[in-house]
Amino acid sequence: MKVTIIGLGLIGGSMAKDMRKIGFASQITGVDNNPDHCSQALNHKIVDAIATLDKGITNADLIILAIPVLGAQKVIHALLDKIDDRTVVMDVGSTKTGICNEIRDHPSRKNFVATHPMAGTEFSGPDAAIEGLFRQKASIICDREQSSPEAVELVINLYHALGMHTIYMNASDHDVHAAYVSHISHISSFVLSLTVLEKEKSEKAILDMASGGFESTVRLAKSSSEMWSQIFIQNKNPMIEVIDKYSDYLTEFRQAILNDDKTKIETLIQKANEIKKALK
Amino acid sequence: MKVTIIGLGLIGGSMAKDMRKIGFASQITGVDNNPDHCSQALNHKIVDAIATLDKGITNADLIILAIPVLGAQKVIHALLDKIDDRTVVMDVGSTKTGICNEIRDHPSRKNFVATHPMAGTEFSGPDAAIEGLFRQKASIICDREQSSPEAVELVINLYHALGMHTIYMNASDHDVHAAYVSHISHISSFVLSLTVLEKEKSEKAILDMASGGFESTVRLAKSSSEMWSQIFIQNKNPMIEVIDKYSDYLTEFRQAILNDDKTKIETLIQKANEIKKALK
Repeated sequence: MKVTIIGLGLIGGSMAKDMRKIGFASQITGVDNNPDHCSQALNHKIVDAIATLDKGITNADLIILAIPVLGAQKVIHALLDKIDDRTVVMDVGSTKTGICNEIRDHPSRKNFVATHPMAGTEFSGPDAAIEGLFRQKASIICDREQSSPEAVELVINLYHALGMHTIYMNASDHDVHAAYVSHISHISSFVLSLTVLEKEKSEKAILDMASGGFESTVRLAKSSSEMWSQIFIQNKNPMIEVIDKYSDYLTEFRQAILNDDKTKIETLIQKANEIKKALK
Repeated sequence: MKVTIIGLGLIGGSMAKDMRKIGFASQITGVDNNPDHCSQALNHKIVDAIATLDKGITNADLIILAIPVLGAQKVIHALLDKIDDRTVVMDVGSTKTGICNEIRDHPSRKNFVATHPMAGTEFSGPDAAIEGLFRQKASIICDREQSSPEAVELVINLYHALGMHTIYMNASDHDVHAAYVSHISHISSFVLSLTVLEKEKSEKAILDMASGGFESTVRLAKSSSEMWSQIFIQNKNPMIEVIDKYSDYLTEFRQAILNDDKTKIETLIQKANEIKKALK
């Protein structure tokens, strides 16, 4: 199968590595605006060739759109204008309402499958691409009834080949769940980092005092500003909702500490402890 | 050397395991109010014997006070009343002002060394004790000038034997740094967990959608309510300060998202990214 990947970052690059290894793709063409990403992808043999967008999509069986979400929303309409009728296009962005709304009435809407593989690391670019990133993780397919059964089947086959299981959801439900289970974690880490950096001017002081707990909690603060600024903006309403809930709980802790209310703090922590069950 | 450990939890238990392995202690006696902890500690051969507090401290060369911080503050005065003049007492709690103030004028203050080994996991109790927990981590010794040089030397020898390096700080500076580099991480994780659990009633939904990022950020939310409620209360003023700073940054993110202010969001994230340097 001929696969074209638009956007040779962590997700696009890691998919390419696995698709080649398991023989899902016979030829992988890469498209990326960033010349450094193109040469890194060639050097790491992530792609067979680099092409312009127009050349890259010609004759492709599957096009994977793996650029940040506002960019994806911007190009998807023109992309569907240009493809052959037999070509399947999928995206892998962390928000789904924007891109699905953008092409709701496009004549080739059925060729498009909206997906979100729930996998990643705090690193970015083709250098960060790793084999096995998707194994035993879930991938969400949104608004599947808008896609042709053949297109959905191809995408499911790909995700199964990558070792993922698939979940179906509508785009707006997805975006709310993603805000709660993924996007707020990033806000939480970014805010933690900013708070600590403001106080601790010396990196050595942080390094000395930071035990494993801090490292784990702040890990996502290393994530890409380009990618996450776009996700937060595109997922604005769910983000505001989840930040407000988060903020309410923060205020509850603050008030309980201020009141020396040990019982209240213990109750909050014991409730928080229940996350154990979900992470077994 | 005869060592008595009061509090057979993660820290006390892990210290015992290493002290025995490296031959630092010839005999380890455990004291704990919780009968389950006592039998677990005996079963795991963490201690040679269990004793009451009064019997446990008789003839000890070193007493390690490893119970939650409010409890430690409560017993330290009476403990120093009872010890021989040659016995050294150290604590390992996450806050230092409370305990140091409590015994500021005690005639045996010089026998006491206030310490905070910066190591731990989200688990608790003797079952959670592991070998090598302290290796390559820092331990902070507070108000060393209040302790006798011999007592400090013994404690430094222990920490070096455990593979730690030592840092000196006064107790109130310690508590502010700990609030920023350790305690707020826990608040952040607890609040994240509460926020997600409120929305996602189904554990399966969380499990399906949670990628590694969420797991890492929420890990500390599994931590002990008994231990952390006491730390937060004892470190009240620094906690309120750090929560307010954290809350300000959260509000900055919220406002920037509400305004679709991509540049502002990117600037915040890029500043947060600088934590990379401290975590190398």
